[in-house]
Amino acid sequence: MPNIVVVGAGVAGLTSALLLSRDKSNKVTIVARHMPGDYDIQYTSPWAGANVLPMSAAPGSRWERETWPELQRLASEVPEAGIHFQKAMVLRRPKKEVSASTVVGKPAALSESLFDGNPWFRELMPDFRDLPADEVLEGYASASEFTSVCINTMLYLPWLVGQCRANGVVLRRAVLAHIADAAAYANLQVQSDGTTTPATGLDHSNTIIVNCTGLLACRLGGVMDSAVQPVRGQVVVVRDELSPMLTSDSVDDAYGEAPQTEIFYNMTRAGGGGTVIGGTYQLGNWASEPDLNTAARLLARMAATHPTLRAAGKTAADLDVIRHGVGLRPYRAGGVRLESEQIDLHGGSGKVWVVHNYGHAGWGYQGSYGCSNRVVELVAEIVGKA
Amino acid sequence: MPNIVVVGAGVAGLTSALLLSRDKSNKVTIVARHMPGDYDIQYTSPWAGANVLPMSAAPGSRWERETWPELQRLASEVPEAGIHFQKAMVLRRPKKEVSASTVVGKPAALSESLFDGNPWFRELMPDFRDLPADEVLEGYASASEFTSVCINTMLYLPWLVGQCRANGVVLRRAVLAHIADAAAYANLQVQSDGTTTPATGLDHSNTIIVNCTGLLACRLGGVMDSAVQPVRGQVVVVRDELSPMLTSDSVDDAYGEAPQTEIFYNMTRAGGGGTVIGGTYQLGNWASEPDLNTAARLLARMAATHPTLRAAGKTAADLDVIRHGVGLRPYRAGGVRLESEQIDLHGGSGKVWVVHNYGHAGWGYQGSYGCSNRVVELVAEIVGKA
Amino acid sequence: MPNIVVVGAGVAGLTSALLLSRDKSNKVTIVARHMPGDYDIQYTSPWAGANVLPMSAAPGSRWERETWPELQRLASEVPEAGIHFQKAMVLRRPKKEVSASTVVGKPAALSESLFDGNPWFRELMPDFRDLPADEVLEGYASASEFTSVCINTMLYLPWLVGQCRANGVVLRRAVLAHIADAAAYANLQVQSDGTTTPATGLDHSNTIIVNCTGLLACRLGGVMDSAVQPVRGQVVVVRDELSPMLTSDSVDDAYGEAPQTEIFYNMTRAGGGGTVIGGTYQLGNWASEPDLNTAARLLARMAATHPTLRAAGKTAADLDVIRHGVGLRPYRAGGVRLESEQIDLHGGSGKVWVVHNYGHAGWGYQGSYGCSNRVVELVAEIVGKA
Amino acid sequence: MPNIVVVGAGVAGLTSALLLSRDKSNKVTIVARHMPGDYDIQYTSPWAGANVLPMSAAPGSRWERETWPELQRLASEVPEAGIHFQKAMVLRRPKKEVSASTVVGKPAALSESLFDGNPWFRELMPDFRDLPADEVLEGYASASEFTSVCINTMLYLPWLVGQCRANGVVLRRAVLAHIADAAAYANLQVQSDGTTTPATGLDHSNTIIVNCTGLLACRLGGVMDSAVQPVRGQVVVVRDELSPMLTSDSVDDAYGEAPQTEIFYNMTRAGGGGTVIGGTYQLGNWASEPDLNTAARLLARMAATHPTLRAAGKTAADLDVIRHGVGLRPYRAGGVRLESEQIDLHGGSGKVWVVHNYGHAGWGYQGSYGCSNRVVELVAEIVGKA
Repeated sequence: MPNIVVVGAGVAGLTSALLLSRDKSNKVTIVARHMPGDYDIQYTSPWAGANVLPMSAAPGSRWERETWPELQRLASEVPEAGIHFQKAMVLRRPKKEVSASTVVGKPAALSESLFDGNPWFRELMPDFRDLPADEVLEGYASASEFTSVCINTMLYLPWLVGQCRANGVVLRRAVLAHIADAAAYANLQVQSDGTTTPATGLDHSNTIIVNCTGLLACRLGGVMDSAVQPVRGQVVVVRDELSPMLTSDSVDDAYGEAPQTEIFYNMTRAGGGGTVIGGTYQLGNWASEPDLNTAARLLARMAATHPTLRAAGKTAADLDVIRHGVGLRPYRAGGVRLESEQIDLHGGSGKVWVVHNYGHAGWGYQGSYGCSNRVVELVAEIVGKA
Repeated sequence: MPNIVVVGAGVAGLTSALLLSRDKSNKVTIVARHMPGDYDIQYTSPWAGANVLPMSAAPGSRWERETWPELQRLASEVPEAGIHFQKAMVLRRPKKEVSASTVVGKPAALSESLFDGNPWFRELMPDFRDLPADEVLEGYASASEFTSVCINTMLYLPWLVGQCRANGVVLRRAVLAHIADAAAYANLQVQSDGTTTPATGLDHSNTIIVNCTGLLACRLGGVMDSAVQPVRGQVVVVRDELSPMLTSDSVDDAYGEAPQTEIFYNMTRAGGGGTVIGGTYQLGNWASEPDLNTAARLLARMAATHPTLRAAGKTAADLDVIRHGVGLRPYRAGGVRLESEQIDLHGGSGKVWVVHNYGHAGWGYQGSYGCSNRVVELVAEIVGKA
Repeated sequence: MPNIVVVGAGVAGLTSALLLSRDKSNKVTIVARHMPGDYDIQYTSPWAGANVLPMSAAPGSRWERETWPELQRLASEVPEAGIHFQKAMVLRRPKKEVSASTVVGKPAALSESLFDGNPWFRELMPDFRDLPADEVLEGYASASEFTSVCINTMLYLPWLVGQCRANGVVLRRAVLAHIADAAAYANLQVQSDGTTTPATGLDHSNTIIVNCTGLLACRLGGVMDSAVQPVRGQVVVVRDELSPMLTSDSVDDAYGEAPQTEIFYNMTRAGGGGTVIGGTYQLGNWASEPDLNTAARLLARMAATHPTLRAAGKTAADLDVIRHGVGLRPYRAGGVRLESEQIDLHGGSGKVWVVHNYGHAGWGYQGSYGCSNRVVELVAEIVGKA
Repeated sequence: MPNIVVVGAGVAGLTSALLLSRDKSNKVTIVARHMPGDYDIQYTSPWAGANVLPMSAAPGSRWERETWPELQRLASEVPEAGIHFQKAMVLRRPKKEVSASTVVGKPAALSESLFDGNPWFRELMPDFRDLPADEVLEGYASASEFTSVCINTMLYLPWLVGQCRANGVVLRRAVLAHIADAAAYANLQVQSDGTTTPATGLDHSNTIIVNCTGLLACRLGGVMDSAVQPVRGQVVVVRDELSPMLTSDSVDDAYGEAPQTEIFYNMTRAGGGGTVIGGTYQLGNWASEPDLNTAARLLARMAATHPTLRAAGKTAADLDVIRHGVGLRPYRAGGVRLESEQIDLHGGSGKVWVVHNYGHAGWGYQGSYGCSNRVVELVAEIVGKA
């Protein structure tokens, strides 16, 4: 009976734990520095929007393809999960002459596929249509629209924890210095007083660690993945409700820093979760505090563009701000790491299996079920070998 | 069919909405400035511990008496709710000579009943026992123990939202200047794009507003209750797991400010929610930022006292801090306000019923079902009259 | 030889200490919880604009009358002090019909005199003139203009400390629980290693405490002045330079809270100190964190009104924000407290003189030399009696 | 007559401007995003301790050698500058066996010279002596002591601004995207209303830009120096006064992260500036918020070690915290950049000279006069050529 320790309680860790816990022969523990309810710059998931705007290229689209049906089901059938449907409108700028002194184009590392005129997800996402010219918003060359969802992360992450708890998953706070430290939490026991204690006499031949540490994979002993770095995202959350969700491939009034790092999107969360107005896409930037001038530009652009606000005659100063937010997307050069390896336990006490599931950049929610399906497969392969 | 608008999405508002929504003839909307997932000084519920330590005197104990069975049920049967059992130990100091220059005794407005040697809840709380002298912690005169629960508010508040959503409650963000403004949200309609729109043609004869605005009741137009003021509570949240939950009627090393405003307690939340170490009880204090010296004293006292930490030889510097927190308990001189009244709608357009449910000070969670039951009764009385 | 202990290192405390230290027979110590360089909500002076806009009525104008010449001299002759000249323009709204549902007029406790059409300071302030109708800004009924100064508090407060140090004043950090505690710092000695030690064998017959504790006078043992409460001021500091300094007696688009609490002003600090855009005037409000929607309104109003910004075609989003700020003006019902009294020392060890200088609300800088002159007089009276 | 534009208002920029302004033929402007009085993570100088602990190796010691006499003079003769003398004690750990699982030794990039048993500055710093064994603090192998200074940066930076203003330097806030943008501020004019306006008709043949942008040199257009990165320093500032200033080459209870990143030092600032307790030395770490567990360790180590605190029986919880701080030392691989180059102006309008003075890591104050002397030489060379 495998003792599985999932490291990390972001959307990747919680979804992996949830799918693994559906097999009652697995004993699953989640060990994490941060848990739903924390807002910390090291913990990305609560800062996410989140919605579904497919970002992968067709060949790597398995994770997003496998996730959509489950998010669609939750939006339709499980109100407790905090997901609802919203239309998504993808806006494309006219092609530009690029002069040396002009900052244009997409930020480094931002998805190409999403803004493709004929994307692979045309068949996946419901009600996909290309907008006729008279429906395209002013200043854009073309646009497409489809039915998507917006996830209220403040409801969805706790809901995932609740589902895990219902399946017997044990959750434990800890700060790990090395990925092998996670083995100490295998088969963790919950006492009647609610505290947890280590299992005794475990030899770790049945222990499997699932590494869902996101951005911290660049610092965790035994992983230290130098391909991982942040893509900083700053947003403003407002009380106003907007529809549809807009997203654009660039902004026209780009702030005078090269490369361009500001993007444009909005989404209104289910259940009174407010509307997220984005955003930035800043590769390699670790700054955890919101930049107030960036925030002002985000609000001004949205007020100038969104049909809901234009119809109501609202300016940036009319938007009702709840808070500013900054999250660090866990980008990985080369893409997500989904594979298994054996590593040494501490003190020469043998080896332990590790399944990696990190490096989701900005598509962590919309790829969560696909990637976690792969984690389940990788665990099954290990158990089969054992 | 009553159109009920609950104002406020703290534990009082969400529980009221949940119980009201169980009657399918009610159409329930929640309108709130803040929602679960927000951390804002105006929004108290997320900052709460929370646990069950009865604070009322026997004659006013209905709210706590009616709440315990439901919290006990959730801890036993509904892991998704994020509640688990922990032992609670109530510690009583020896009586003291009080000299003019010594700061002693409990903070103003702190419960007398909880520290009574023979409390009414002896029969309510399971496994109640008075500790023999050799089990009383050093420095205390006597102690009692019983089985209680700790609520992980980061899981429980979203779970309440989820249950409300499952019952068809509509949630909407808004900042109200006057309690009568809430009428505009009666029978609020959710559109297919997830946004909400007002009902048309409503005459408000069936509208009932439920006022669960907590501390903001002192500022809200049409309420402006000057008996409401904050009791500031500062805590530190740590990763360490402690058992049992301790609480004491005073602290011995009281900081040199009169009146004493520091108290002593801890609780470990379910599901990796961390341990809350408290705290302060500062009547009339609105300061939203943690005082760092207060925090150091809270940690030092806990390290010096708690058996789990003493056994492990841990000092204050070994405690693994997640964050500092400050919440403003919604205290009301004279106690909770649970009653109904009719008020004028704006613009001379008639009257509307308001049911008040605010002023829970530090017992909002442990009285939530009792108070909400009373809200249901008050609504029924109004509907009966209508 | 009097041993004087000034409590508080805001503009009142530092100016009092500076003037007292000019008499070499005085031995002056400053004891303070906060010092220049701190930004803390309990420490008001660094959050001030500051400039000179006379607020007193003629009969109580001594403090402002005596201060202006010294600030004028510093602006002319002492660049190190961080003060420069700017024109001030006082704008008056047309009189309004006040309906029950409209929020109009000045916030409670805001100066009447400043907006008087024929104010007493017409003779005091240089270049005073009433603007002809064609120079009055759109939306205002009338306006006056005069030469004033703006004080860069980030330069001026440290400069005051430097002048005090040059005069031999000793500065010491401490948190006092009672005003009599200050006596322990009389004749404080600076050691060669830069630390300070108490004088020995002092009998306090020559000790005089000067109480410049500002807002904290409402909480300090032995003072506990219940007439003192905050008038909360929120501002935005931007990099843009604006001229002239505007101030208005009300705002037209008042936010829907009664009573009105938002006002309108700007000032550009010397030496690259940025421009302060105000603000709020909220009596009894202790909230230390900026409200982001208030901030947006402040910027939008300034962009819509200030000639410099209108000429440049700048909107609120173009303003280059350095930071948001909140300060709590130390308001005192009944006005400033400038008087002496004898109080008991601790432990029955006799009495000590206290000179009070607190309660300056929003005119602390522009009355600082006048009030400190009075402190010098009160000290002289005490020394004369002794 | 050279028009010099210094970019940056940290200690490097202000000292460079001050020395340049002593030559009345120079017209000096300072252009900066941040100015004294700001606390921003992009602006390092206000977060510094600061004191003098020589860190260079002998061959590169010119900057520190030339700075000490001036700081010594200011401490002796100019109380307004906010500098005072304190003894410095350098503590050296015993050599250790290093096992694979033990974290020992100095953080990467920390000075070797400071902890050398026979350092070059033995002759420079007054009263240098090696401590006899019985004076070495418990747990250390050896120690040396000398007279140094502690600079209250909250007084000293504004004092530098004041001296610059007295010399006619003009200060202006601006955010530059490219170093060549600075030319627009050459010969900036201060108007009678305190605002500044560009000179007209300048051809920039006499313009010299001095680049003192510190950490931002890694991001500034035209510089983009990839050798520059932060060395994060976290401190706690307390009210307690400690003597002497301690500093150690490593800590014994190193937190379980490799490489070690925590160090040990304290300094008490002049004029009530509080005591800085350090700290961290984290290469490549941009996190702007204090880590609360790091802070607890810093305080606990100081309480366990410092003679002043041990003599008083104080624990970490007794230290009176003013605030936590984080500054990013502007480290440059290869050392400080002090050299001149010609770069293109925008729009093909010729070239402009730039003198670089950045990359001072943790020795910016103690090398400030030496480096600024070199800036003056480099400017003279350029003027000589012109």
